[in-house]
Amino acid sequence: MSEQTVISVDTTGGDRGPGTILAGLNKAVRQNPAARFILHGDAAEMERLLRRRAALRSACDLRHAEGVVPMDAKPSYVIRHANGTSMLGALDSVRSGEAQVAVSCGNTGALMALAMLRLRTAPGVDRPAIAVTWPSHAPHGYNIVLDVGADVRADARSMVEFAVMGAEYARLSFNLARPRVGVLNVGSEDHKGRPGIREAANLIAEIGPQAGEFEYVGFVEGGDIVSDRVDVIVTDGFTGNIALKTAEGAARLIHHAMRDAFTKTVLSRAAALLAYGSLRRLQKRIDPRRVNGGVFLGLGGAVVKSHGSADATGVAAAVKLAFRMGESGFSQRVADRMALLPEGRRAIAAGQQDGA
Amino acid sequence: MSEQTVISVDTTGGDRGPGTILAGLNKAVRQNPAARFILHGDAAEMERLLRRRAALRSACDLRHAEGVVPMDAKPSYVIRHANGTSMLGALDSVRSGEAQVAVSCGNTGALMALAMLRLRTAPGVDRPAIAVTWPSHAPHGYNIVLDVGADVRADARSMVEFAVMGAEYARLSFNLARPRVGVLNVGSEDHKGRPGIREAANLIAEIGPQAGEFEYVGFVEGGDIVSDRVDVIVTDGFTGNIALKTAEGAARLIHHAMRDAFTKTVLSRAAALLAYGSLRRLQKRIDPRRVNGGVFLGLGGAVVKSHGSADATGVAAAVKLAFRMGESGFSQRVADRMALLPEGRRAIAAGQQDGA
Repeated sequence: MSEQTVISVDTTGGDRGPGTILAGLNKAVRQNPAARFILHGDAAEMERLLRRRAALRSACDLRHAEGVVPMDAKPSYVIRHANGTSMLGALDSVRSGEAQVAVSCGNTGALMALAMLRLRTAPGVDRPAIAVTWPSHAPHGYNIVLDVGADVRADARSMVEFAVMGAEYARLSFNLARPRVGVLNVGSEDHKGRPGIREAANLIAEIGPQAGEFEYVGFVEGGDIVSDRVDVIVTDGFTGNIALKTAEGAARLIHHAMRDAFTKTVLSRAAALLAYGSLRRLQKRIDPRRVNGGVFLGLGGAVVKSHGSADATGVAAAVKLAFRMGESGFSQRVADRMALLPEGRRAIAAGQQDGA
Repeated sequence: MSEQTVISVDTTGGDRGPGTILAGLNKAVRQNPAARFILHGDAAEMERLLRRRAALRSACDLRHAEGVVPMDAKPSYVIRHANGTSMLGALDSVRSGEAQVAVSCGNTGALMALAMLRLRTAPGVDRPAIAVTWPSHAPHGYNIVLDVGADVRADARSMVEFAVMGAEYARLSFNLARPRVGVLNVGSEDHKGRPGIREAANLIAEIGPQAGEFEYVGFVEGGDIVSDRVDVIVTDGFTGNIALKTAEGAARLIHHAMRDAFTKTVLSRAAALLAYGSLRRLQKRIDPRRVNGGVFLGLGGAVVKSHGSADATGVAAAVKLAFRMGESGFSQRVADRMALLPEGRRAIAAGQQDGA
């Protein structure tokens, strides 16, 4: 690519503050020396944090922002009070074309609401989606699940778009020529599930694979999210959000149980020392901080949402992903795919009748 | 209790065959010498499997059944061809009053369909539910989640019944005087989620706690399923099924990753030996075979559904639970609670308008 990739960063969002975010950028710039950043936040504090980081400092353009979007504020409140916040600034750098991708660890609902307001949905997209990379038995270690972020369930037409966008994201993330796409349901047989899910599946099978260049594998169950029989799992948003948080809860529980097991006796503590390398590899593999970079798909610009509690490693992972998206012209690729989806009456009608 | 608890067992359901089920009963009878069983299945094979198990043999009454319900048969097919199967026999022993609880490792959908046909729903219950015990951070190690087994989403009125039945089940399982009940949603704020979920939550808050003697804690998220801020998590069935299978998938993935980590290097293999006891304790804690006993609530008789792939340990856990339910007169307790739920117009109307 001839143009330089610029990433705009909201430095005040997140639970851990700008120090952690700048530490993450410092890691990221070591991995991708070509990356350039526009940082939004408290200018004096950013300068202070950059003082001993010359390489990073020279890659950054600072923009002062007074306001901070609170982690627990409702999207409706944030929309009315967003002026002058670092989150809005980060999005506006993408809107103006100065940056290709925005990164924030802030309030997810607020970020999505502001992103929709400032970047709008991409042409041909009814509704954006949040996609996550999910640890799996796949050779490359992950699958893609989307949408995981919605309050209100997506209709059939939106789920076709999720399938196309998710497949493109899997192509970017895992270098797959023809990703396999499935729809999350309570069973894999065609007659399973609520009517809306079956309608979505039929529509995806009919119009999805050609535009999205993917293989449609049918319904998949919760247990298949980690399997290697599918690369992209499409959900209605509501179910996907609950599945994601449930799995994170299960992983956390097992993590605690493991820690307990390895500190219980003198023998087990000795074992933990012996197995230090292996345990670290295991930790790395199932660590949500490394997976972390949730992506907003279907907007008029790319947005990577890192976990609110992300540490420097998590921030670096999100920036790495953002860099890859910017470099590859990901948003344009998605738009090109969307343009191939038929806008015909049938598809729209099918989408609208799905009120179940 | 003066009367003896009798458990009827479907010995042919499940992936592993009667040998595993009888081995499980053998474990169970050692733990509960007072248990009595009516076994349904191939009489000659059961006799052969019982030959060297004198204690178990003397606790069993055998009933020959020619037919086996296939694990992959659709419920609609099974209902038409169930005559003479061991699954139907096991349910009919409860229907006739000879046994208090039926246990099967067979096809879940078929078992529920036949149970509804032969045992009917309990008085005052619109729709039965499948409840599971879910490993958690609670002091006693588990929470209850229901419904996890439905194709079609439950309405608000049914979810009130789930709350009452789930609370009673938590009382039985964990000796809690006043269990805390929450409703699974995408956020804990009152305005979150689809309209049907909010309607259910309002109805539970209004009429549930008095009849069910529980504390209603409001909406909980996927991550809260493992928390100790709630004992019983009510779901609409569809979402619960996906959450359950997703969590099982996550646990399996981590289990495999752990096994890999501890066999990778000589050092880590040595560590695994050193930590053998701790790893076994950990395994036991997160082992779905021990959790296993799903329970059908709201039927005119008690049914425990063990995992299709349950081994002897899993079967023994299911029998132990069945024994406890029979001994405590669980079905009657649930019926008594249900009778306390107002049948008033308002509640029913609220349930019916929930079509979202």
